[in-house]
Amino acid sequence: MASRSRPPADPASRRASAIARHLRPRPTPTPLPWSPLEPLPCLQYSPPESSAKAAAFDVAEMRRLMDGHDVEARDWAYGVIAESPLFWSPTRGPGGRPFLVPDYNQSMEQQREMILRRIVYLVGRGVFNGWLTGVGKEAEMRRFALLESIGLFDHSINVKIGVHFFLWGLSIRFLGTKRHHEKWLKDSEDYLVKGCFAMTELGHGSNVRGIETVATYDSTTGEFIINTPCESAQKYWIGGAAKHAMHTVIFAQLYMEGKNQGVHAFVAQIRNTDGNVCANIRIADCGHKIGLNGVDNGRIWFDNLRVPRENLLNSVSDVLLDGRYRFAAFLAPLTIGRVNILTNAVYTSKVALAIAIRYSLTRRAFSITNDGPEVLLLDYPSHQRRLLPLVAKTCAMSFAANHMKRMYVQRTPELNKAIHVYSSAFKATFTWHNMRTLQECREACGGQGIKTENRVGMQGDYDVQSTFEGDNHVLMQQVSKSLLAEYIAALKRNKPLRAFGLEHMNNPCPSIPDNLSSSAVRGSQFQMDVFYLRERDLLSRLAKEVSKYQGRGESKEYAAILSYQVAEELGKAFAERVTLQTILEAEMTALDGQLKDILGLLRCMYALISIEEDSSFLRYGYLSPSNAATVRKEVENLLSELRPQALAIVDSFGIPPAFLSPLAFDWIATNSWSSVQQ
Amino acid sequence: MASRSRPPADPASRRASAIARHLRPRPTPTPLPWSPLEPLPCLQYSPPESSAKAAAFDVAEMRRLMDGHDVEARDWAYGVIAESPLFWSPTRGPGGRPFLVPDYNQSMEQQREMILRRIVYLVGRGVFNGWLTGVGKEAEMRRFALLESIGLFDHSINVKIGVHFFLWGLSIRFLGTKRHHEKWLKDSEDYLVKGCFAMTELGHGSNVRGIETVATYDSTTGEFIINTPCESAQKYWIGGAAKHAMHTVIFAQLYMEGKNQGVHAFVAQIRNTDGNVCANIRIADCGHKIGLNGVDNGRIWFDNLRVPRENLLNSVSDVLLDGRYRFAAFLAPLTIGRVNILTNAVYTSKVALAIAIRYSLTRRAFSITNDGPEVLLLDYPSHQRRLLPLVAKTCAMSFAANHMKRMYVQRTPELNKAIHVYSSAFKATFTWHNMRTLQECREACGGQGIKTENRVGMQGDYDVQSTFEGDNHVLMQQVSKSLLAEYIAALKRNKPLRAFGLEHMNNPCPSIPDNLSSSAVRGSQFQMDVFYLRERDLLSRLAKEVSKYQGRGESKEYAAILSYQVAEELGKAFAERVTLQTILEAEMTALDGQLKDILGLLRCMYALISIEEDSSFLRYGYLSPSNAATVRKEVENLLSELRPQALAIVDSFGIPPAFLSPLAFDWIATNSWSSVQQ
Repeated sequence: MASRSRPPADPASRRASAIARHLRPRPTPTPLPWSPLEPLPCLQYSPPESSAKAAAFDVAEMRRLMDGHDVEARDWAYGVIAESPLFWSPTRGPGGRPFLVPDYNQSMEQQREMILRRIVYLVGRGVFNGWLTGVGKEAEMRRFALLESIGLFDHSINVKIGVHFFLWGLSIRFLGTKRHHEKWLKDSEDYLVKGCFAMTELGHGSNVRGIETVATYDSTTGEFIINTPCESAQKYWIGGAAKHAMHTVIFAQLYMEGKNQGVHAFVAQIRNTDGNVCANIRIADCGHKIGLNGVDNGRIWFDNLRVPRENLLNSVSDVLLDGRYRFAAFLAPLTIGRVNILTNAVYTSKVALAIAIRYSLTRRAFSITNDGPEVLLLDYPSHQRRLLPLVAKTCAMSFAANHMKRMYVQRTPELNKAIHVYSSAFKATFTWHNMRTLQECREACGGQGIKTENRVGMQGDYDVQSTFEGDNHVLMQQVSKSLLAEYIAALKRNKPLRAFGLEHMNNPCPSIPDNLSSSAVRGSQFQMDVFYLRERDLLSRLAKEVSKYQGRGESKEYAAILSYQVAEELGKAFAERVTLQTILEAEMTALDGQLKDILGLLRCMYALISIEEDSSFLRYGYLSPSNAATVRKEVENLLSELRPQALAIVDSFGIPPAFLSPLAFDWIATNSWSSVQQ
Repeated sequence: MASRSRPPADPASRRASAIARHLRPRPTPTPLPWSPLEPLPCLQYSPPESSAKAAAFDVAEMRRLMDGHDVEARDWAYGVIAESPLFWSPTRGPGGRPFLVPDYNQSMEQQREMILRRIVYLVGRGVFNGWLTGVGKEAEMRRFALLESIGLFDHSINVKIGVHFFLWGLSIRFLGTKRHHEKWLKDSEDYLVKGCFAMTELGHGSNVRGIETVATYDSTTGEFIINTPCESAQKYWIGGAAKHAMHTVIFAQLYMEGKNQGVHAFVAQIRNTDGNVCANIRIADCGHKIGLNGVDNGRIWFDNLRVPRENLLNSVSDVLLDGRYRFAAFLAPLTIGRVNILTNAVYTSKVALAIAIRYSLTRRAFSITNDGPEVLLLDYPSHQRRLLPLVAKTCAMSFAANHMKRMYVQRTPELNKAIHVYSSAFKATFTWHNMRTLQECREACGGQGIKTENRVGMQGDYDVQSTFEGDNHVLMQQVSKSLLAEYIAALKRNKPLRAFGLEHMNNPCPSIPDNLSSSAVRGSQFQMDVFYLRERDLLSRLAKEVSKYQGRGESKEYAAILSYQVAEELGKAFAERVTLQTILEAEMTALDGQLKDILGLLRCMYALISIEEDSSFLRYGYLSPSNAATVRKEVENLLSELRPQALAIVDSFGIPPAFLSPLAFDWIATNSWSSVQQ
């Protein structure tokens, strides 16, 4: 390997020599011919810290910025989990402490029982105090933080808690009124009442308005009679229904005097206190899944089930007598489900990346000189290219997720639309990012990524994220429709745009010079400009395409369906523009110069890798081929600049060691005969 | 919805009206207000066949073309599996016949025992007759066909069979000599001897030359003494080792008189006939995995294990005394592992696509007119865009896989290099395609894709494909290195290129006009030209970049490492060019005009979607933005042209109904209370 005295001038060589520094052989003995007398020198484990540069920034402060709120509450929750053997893995980690990971070799039935016992333990520790009865923004932010922390253990416990407290509990709170609150809220918070949420049916998922379950009002007895008129109307995927839930919210088409009043929500008991299914109800298991088997998803049939009239969740039922928009308002409080999913996706990516980066700093493969030492995985530019951009994206998404949570807790009726649009865009892009990150980390860890105890190959558990609470593609279409509506309304009013951060379109269109310098493409000015340019151009393209089809006599809905491709590109452009804004804001407001620097590097990588990966920049000419080449070169430079700080950055994710896995520490020791003999 | 009398002229409207025809409301009763007296009309299942156009081609003949060989043997194998309850799922399908899918809710231990019983049954049925003792190309092609068919059941049985017959059995056959054949070949074919293949170690996977297990020759006793000198040298991921294997091939560094003779292969018994582990051997389980839990992966430690000198697999050991190239030759016969993986990836994609397409022709969501009927999923252009390009790619890869198999069975020492390059390129691209296809099909089936019995969300079982038998990224780098070596050699010799199909580079560089017509981009001339252009340009870019780094004093190896990105783009360009050639050849040689037409549509979609998805066409200017826009428009036109034939195409995959899943048939009936009550 060549080495140099002075750092060379041009970026490529700068990068080359930067890598060369990492590749330079460390003092390891060269192999001797083996004989029984002198044992062959073997692979030794040296921790990532041993070879890593010192952090160039305050790791604890960086964590506070990315966690954004309630850091102490998070650490408390981590401690509560670590204290209970219910969460312990047989494998021991640093300090002899057990790793915290479920046994995925258990059957679906066993996993469900374990999850229940874990939740009951958390209830006993007061983790959920105030989750349903608490008031105020701080209480809601703290609840987010606690759920995010518990979710690090596994996705089943996150979903099982989410179904009970948010889908059931918050339906009672937001859709119900005083009489419902008095009856169920506190008992639900204490997990004495276990609830579920019967909206989805076999025949209808995303299209809630099409559900077939019916409720008719019997004025003689003052009861609603709920029926499953056909097999496609069976409630499906109802989390908690298969085993543990005692109560449910039922969504049904309400008919009064034969007239359809639209979808309403009713409360019904489905199991007696002895756990047996109530009369006039049939329940069956949804069966084994590719992941998330700790959640007992079930189906429910109703046979002339009579519920008293006061069980109608009536807080908004008066606004339900017409119209799609009001239906959205009806469901607005439940967007918290999407907010939970998108924040959980960010933390899951952090776990996988922390493990994969640490492993890549301890695992060597191939030598580039004959009989030279093998090279650390993360010293391969190709390995850096696989992992470091995902690290930067995950950091950027942390800030976007915090932005989303603050927006949610400050919700007002006026904000509902924006909350729906932002949460839809983030839910889709962050869960896709999470699945890609898990996959990349799995492959980057080689065969070790296949072992469930190593926790990088968790795709099966998270796969559902991309279709539940709304199919990601459907959500992206809805995002673009909302942007388009705002755009058209502004044109019609001949007023400036004033929603969804589209105000930038009121300014003159940014123009990007054809031959930008390396330093120019690293500037936030260029990066924001080109993201603005992409978004405004795609929005006007969408408007043109839709009106073209309408001009041919197609309905507005069908014209939108035909324009799906631009719509999806626009949804992505919107999500990435907002995400870039949030990390840029964090960079600008950072008080500490070193934090500014690392945030600047990460912001830069986020912006440039997003450009590199989205062909629309070249397809629609937002960038010249020459600029695209400069962007690629800068991505490579950023890789070698981030490489020395990779360990510090994943440390700043703040994931406790026990929530990582053997692969993140001395994997030779945990695989040694003494550790694994049976 | 608008409808038209005459088909409009321009492609976009042609497409719109084509879709309109599908979207036109079918005679379904409009919803009536529900009352106890008159039940609400419910979702009815109507089979895909009921709405599909008649096949525009001979489906059986199309299947013969894609299966390529031994269709009768495949059908026989399907029948053998269907006859045994060992393979039956509790769920019943068409004609009341059970589906053939394993119970994924079983523990790792249970799944392993079931797989063993299934293999023993297949042995009894004579499925493996001649697999190790048979000779001739026909025998080898038939063996491919049978393994592909058995592999449809699940990936564990495919891998478990592959490890025993190919890794163990063919090592005995190809690396061993007469004495080894006489001792083990027939008994292995009859599964009386169960073998495994101890090459990979905890510390070394892809880099086999770095393994640490040592063998020393004891001339006094004429034995080799095999040792695991350290924990990183433990044999790892050894399929069959944890439970069932009795014998193994051990790869170790051979030392004679203290001098390292390189990696050699030895045979040793690891379990006695009573199933207990032999002396001087320790075995432990690799544990639970994210998939493939039917395979009992284990680790092995050797403690002064003595094996008789005749257990050295010596057929090629004389060529092992030096050099990387000879080491490749040593392992060449084992490339069959990669060939099996890539063909299996194609058939797995076929299963998932057949299920997802059939479901999308029976599942409706949302209506585009108020109170109009809901729309079939596959009538959404966005849904077509998700699935139909994957269908076309899978068809193209079928022909490439057949090409690969024929190449393998005609292997000669001269062909070894080409077989390595083609099998590496196809293994990487086809397994990536398979994972993407499984993921897309899972999401396209919504929540139903999450149920293991539905068989579309099988990513966990196949994930390992992208890293075993060589990490896909490493393989792509090797492909590009070989292309580069041929390129440089030709330049040096000042002779034309003559390997890997690079002969096209001896012709003048194709030039692509800036404003191609729709019909031009659909032509095979343009498609081959632009694929050739991409490959030759990327190859010369790689050469330039490598020599640039070498010019700066970097070693050849390190220069290649720095050029990873172009190298990966080139590997992909190579794989796609060869794949396009194989389906184009099938199209040209098809005797039947209708087959020519459908193959032409699929070839066209394969070529144009590959262009659409690879930004290098725009990045490096192989296509003008205007041509790129034309390509995108033609992709959309091809979607609406393929849509009416989608069912016929997946029928031509030749997957028996029992190997599909409930989702592919009457999923309302299989989910009805009478079917699922517990």
